[in-house]
Amino acid sequence: MSLKKIAILGVGLLGGSLGLALRGEKKFKLMGWNHRASSRKRAAKILPMARTIREALQGADIVLITAHSSQVVPLLSEISRFAAPDALIMDVSSVKSEIVNQASKFSWAPYHFVPCHPMAGREKSGPESAEGDLYRGKVVFISPLPKTPRELLGRAVSFWRRVGAQPVVLPPDRHDEFVALTSHLPHLLASALVDLYGDYQKKDPRVQRALGTGFRDSTRVAAGNPDMWADILGMNGGPIAHFLSRYRGRLLELEKRLGNKKNGGQWRRYFAKVKKIRKDL
Amino acid sequence: MSLKKIAILGVGLLGGSLGLALRGEKKFKLMGWNHRASSRKRAAKILPMARTIREALQGADIVLITAHSSQVVPLLSEISRFAAPDALIMDVSSVKSEIVNQASKFSWAPYHFVPCHPMAGREKSGPESAEGDLYRGKVVFISPLPKTPRELLGRAVSFWRRVGAQPVVLPPDRHDEFVALTSHLPHLLASALVDLYGDYQKKDPRVQRALGTGFRDSTRVAAGNPDMWADILGMNGGPIAHFLSRYRGRLLELEKRLGNKKNGGQWRRYFAKVKKIRKDL
Repeated sequence: MSLKKIAILGVGLLGGSLGLALRGEKKFKLMGWNHRASSRKRAAKILPMARTIREALQGADIVLITAHSSQVVPLLSEISRFAAPDALIMDVSSVKSEIVNQASKFSWAPYHFVPCHPMAGREKSGPESAEGDLYRGKVVFISPLPKTPRELLGRAVSFWRRVGAQPVVLPPDRHDEFVALTSHLPHLLASALVDLYGDYQKKDPRVQRALGTGFRDSTRVAAGNPDMWADILGMNGGPIAHFLSRYRGRLLELEKRLGNKKNGGQWRRYFAKVKKIRKDL
Repeated sequence: MSLKKIAILGVGLLGGSLGLALRGEKKFKLMGWNHRASSRKRAAKILPMARTIREALQGADIVLITAHSSQVVPLLSEISRFAAPDALIMDVSSVKSEIVNQASKFSWAPYHFVPCHPMAGREKSGPESAEGDLYRGKVVFISPLPKTPRELLGRAVSFWRRVGAQPVVLPPDRHDEFVALTSHLPHLLASALVDLYGDYQKKDPRVQRALGTGFRDSTRVAAGNPDMWADILGMNGGPIAHFLSRYRGRLLELEKRLGNKKNGGQWRRYFAKVKKIRKDL
């Protein structure tokens, strides 16, 4: 059995964690590539890093694009030039519809590219935050292109199972709705709260004394990577705006209710309902 | 030196944690009281529980009202009938203006009652969640009545230092603004997000697979005690509505920005600004 070459492009938290998870396996030969020399150096502590993207891709059987969402499609044509003729290409970005749409312009894409999204984000980023068991037990959404053959999809599923993840196949538009609600909207809400807080803190810095674990938990996601989040907001704006609009409507209802002091029973029922949903998550 | 009697009324998480923190001190005699027999029994594992509120209060030098916000003022007149003539009375609820206003109707209140609010909440509640070091290192806001003598305020400050807390004196309206922004608004935002999510989940239960640590962190506070939160919303509606309205305005701006795909740079600057504020908290 010949060695399989796995190329990882854009080795940060996600790519580095794949490197750690796979580097003990004898049937794989890993090679990474990062655009910037400084991050190449940091990633080299985890896996061998190529100097050029061509070197990393040459003859690769599996290519993981672990760069930010906006880099996925630009990298595809480069990959098709250098990777092995039967290469499986996957990304890990949290937006799928736009990537599927753009990738579909390449006639070869259905036979090589399987868009993926592991639910394994962190506020931390960079290869130094990588963990070998980051994917263990985590869901990985797979949103194949319409014409993708079963066999290629099967290879993608096997790959993720190998690093301990649970693959779930889902159409790209439904995937984007899911993550708009469970990840992108919460990120925006936390960011807006931190922004509002920041303005008040300028007015009276003593407000810091009133910060508890609740505020810290609620806003933890707002410390995420700004470039990554700018990409996501730019590429999944439709579903996020849909949920944001509905959310604002609900806040308006709550604001009206705040004006009425006799609403104790209504609040109690509301919080009891919400508590139950939250506890069952 | 005679024993000081400390009465704790409404022994749940906060009162129970005070009991645990103080029960080793030889100069104090602790006695608790809960309205319901079932919760009296649970609290009895921590400190001696009186059968009647009168028994708990009789001759008490320090009285802690650790019941929910709406119970504080109704308990005050009862306390004044039974406690020691120089009793120090404190509450722990997270709303101060309305309690200060209502308590000011009692002519004796400035000489006995010092409204307090330890920043030591949890999603858990009940005496079985109590922890002896819950207050250690935590801020306790103290919002004295306008005529309260320095000496009484000093006794309140000493009490909280004894359980390891950091007392911070603050006017009640400013206190209520602080916690509206850092605690009550985040609670409402998390609740509305969980509610929106719950409706979507009914439509497509697979969305559960898209839940990550981000969503869980962002909504943790929504699992709080519904009765306690109904009280808070009813008593601090003004400041909460003020911030909620401003927050909604910011969300509307963000929603408009989502419609424009060319806004990458604007999003990047926004998230970078927010990340910095969040990291410095």
